[in-house]
Amino acid sequence: MASGHVGKVVDIHTHMYPPEYIKMLEARSAIPLVRTFSSAPDARLILLEAEVPLLQEAEKAGNRNTSILPGRPLTRHYSSLDQKMHFMDTHHINISVLSLANPWLDFLGATESGPVAASINEAFSSMCAQHPGRLFFFATLPLTAPLETVIASIAHVGALRYCRGVILGTSGLGRGLDDAALLPVLEALAAAGLTIFLHPHYGLPNAVWGPRAAAAEYGHVLPLALGFPMETTVAVARMYLAGVFDAVPALRMLLAHSGGTLPFLAGRIESCLRHDGHLLREAEGSGRVGGPARRSIWDVLHDQVYLDAVIYSEVGLKAALHAAGSADRLMFGTDHPFFPPLTSDEQGEWESVSLNTAAVNKALGEGTEAAKAVMGENAIRVLRLHED
Amino acid sequence: MASGHVGKVVDIHTHMYPPEYIKMLEARSAIPLVRTFSSAPDARLILLEAEVPLLQEAEKAGNRNTSILPGRPLTRHYSSLDQKMHFMDTHHINISVLSLANPWLDFLGATESGPVAASINEAFSSMCAQHPGRLFFFATLPLTAPLETVIASIAHVGALRYCRGVILGTSGLGRGLDDAALLPVLEALAAAGLTIFLHPHYGLPNAVWGPRAAAAEYGHVLPLALGFPMETTVAVARMYLAGVFDAVPALRMLLAHSGGTLPFLAGRIESCLRHDGHLLREAEGSGRVGGPARRSIWDVLHDQVYLDAVIYSEVGLKAALHAAGSADRLMFGTDHPFFPPLTSDEQGEWESVSLNTAAVNKALGEGTEAAKAVMGENAIRVLRLHED
Repeated sequence: MASGHVGKVVDIHTHMYPPEYIKMLEARSAIPLVRTFSSAPDARLILLEAEVPLLQEAEKAGNRNTSILPGRPLTRHYSSLDQKMHFMDTHHINISVLSLANPWLDFLGATESGPVAASINEAFSSMCAQHPGRLFFFATLPLTAPLETVIASIAHVGALRYCRGVILGTSGLGRGLDDAALLPVLEALAAAGLTIFLHPHYGLPNAVWGPRAAAAEYGHVLPLALGFPMETTVAVARMYLAGVFDAVPALRMLLAHSGGTLPFLAGRIESCLRHDGHLLREAEGSGRVGGPARRSIWDVLHDQVYLDAVIYSEVGLKAALHAAGSADRLMFGTDHPFFPPLTSDEQGEWESVSLNTAAVNKALGEGTEAAKAVMGENAIRVLRLHED
Repeated sequence: MASGHVGKVVDIHTHMYPPEYIKMLEARSAIPLVRTFSSAPDARLILLEAEVPLLQEAEKAGNRNTSILPGRPLTRHYSSLDQKMHFMDTHHINISVLSLANPWLDFLGATESGPVAASINEAFSSMCAQHPGRLFFFATLPLTAPLETVIASIAHVGALRYCRGVILGTSGLGRGLDDAALLPVLEALAAAGLTIFLHPHYGLPNAVWGPRAAAAEYGHVLPLALGFPMETTVAVARMYLAGVFDAVPALRMLLAHSGGTLPFLAGRIESCLRHDGHLLREAEGSGRVGGPARRSIWDVLHDQVYLDAVIYSEVGLKAALHAAGSADRLMFGTDHPFFPPLTSDEQGEWESVSLNTAAVNKALGEGTEAAKAVMGENAIRVLRLHED
């Protein structure tokens, strides 16, 4: 580790919607969208399938009942760079690696997404250039465009001065991240040395939350607290079972929310694999899935995957550290501008941030080398943030 | 802890299908069912929605291709008590707390389930009576019957000599465990001092596993390794959000598979709750959900929930211990007869068992008081297994 950077705090999980992205959402009539209600001062940002029943409810009610507004207030935190810098200063964050928030460009058609991605990445480049050394970004790929457009986009963003990787959802080209057709994309990213920041959006089908959630009794706790991490876990497990990590050894992925639930379930995944008669026969036949050449999920966790530290508890953080095998594979993040404080000033300290900072300090000891690694050094090293 | 029991090994997660249950499955044409294929020596036990595509495939193929048989071989391990005792002796298990495996009686009609439950519980009582002191059981409730039948059944099983609790899936009365109509059942169980062993079966909708899983490329790893623990986590989180743990303070639940993913996600659940504007307003109104009287998910983990130790890794086991707050809340289990060894003799040692034993020994140190607590003492104390 470069001693000149000891003690720097880096936020690798921090989102922005550039103003032009907000404009796109304002013009939409299906989620994701931005909607104004007469009963609330801020417009509402409505992203999730689980929020649609509330959206319909609010429309039916003629916007009278503020207690049932869907989504979240669209404050300046989502699109203002000044606000991002203020947030960073308030929380003593030296460097942020910005990314477009979900659902990225998933809703755009094949011909739209290429130009929009270029424009969004240009907007992020321009933001970074305003604060050189303090801002970098994960680029957005036009995944709904033809494959050659996606590949060309990787070459393009790889050459952008402040780009250090790409943010990816779990859709891939429409059939998930275990889609064989996605392999050239993953290979191109690995070859370009671009880290993939894997982030959820779709969660799980609404049916699993049950009738009381559908009646909006639980806010959006279930889709966010459980759906998001479960989606990430499923996506990585599918990649693992498809042999993607074996096929692209140089693949490097940073998993949102400390890997979803991968650290906790890795042992069960490995055991189920070793006890599956179907996979055993496959392995005897092809040698691919489940065969002796297959690396274990622990190998993947130790060599190809990084975890963010956005897990809100010492229990989760310790499990993530233990699964990763080393404090050198975790990276602090805030998830700003999501989860603003509800009972204190949004311009002050955010509890969502202090929960994650406290988890690192409790698990590793405040100011220890390991804590410093998680809080910033790892990101600086892995994402080359000392190179301007 | 009673010193006379130090060092005893208790298996609290171990299933049986009594012969009459197998006969019911043989007579069925929809899952769960037992089906015989000409290409395989054992009949196949087919339980999961995720196994249906393979079942249809096998039927189309006229049973020729053994590599695509659905489900798992229905060996003697599922219904033979002698085989259970042999398994216990092989693995030095002193006491087993038997339970009917999933999906219990979920598929029976309202008038059938009462008599069948009585008969199944009688079969378990009779097994236990054949090996007094070595066998106890979690009873099966006729949850598809009218509520008064369910309540009467609780009084009935509570009086059975070897019954120490009930095994429960996540369906409840058909609308999940957060259904207000289920509260009288949970209250009756708590009042009778019967521990609820919460066990998954339905996993997640097939769509989340993607097209390659549908093409049977991954065996049943995804539904078992991820679907099962995610279902448990969702069920407990729904109960928690509905205020069930507050409403029934005497409720005691033992969660299968170390709580699914609850230990890892507890911090995120709590944070999402504290950052949900909708719940905040609810709390200000009713004081129920999210209000100051609500206990935290950590309180539930420390006071009302036990976790089994069926997690197959030291990482997971340590996280479960950490979340539970004490080694006094975890209980060893095997999940026998599921996950038999594929490459060694089924009559010998099972790797699925040794993985879980190794996890306890690595996390707590072999032979330590804490390890002994998890391996048996906790179950003896909590489930009163010293009382014959």
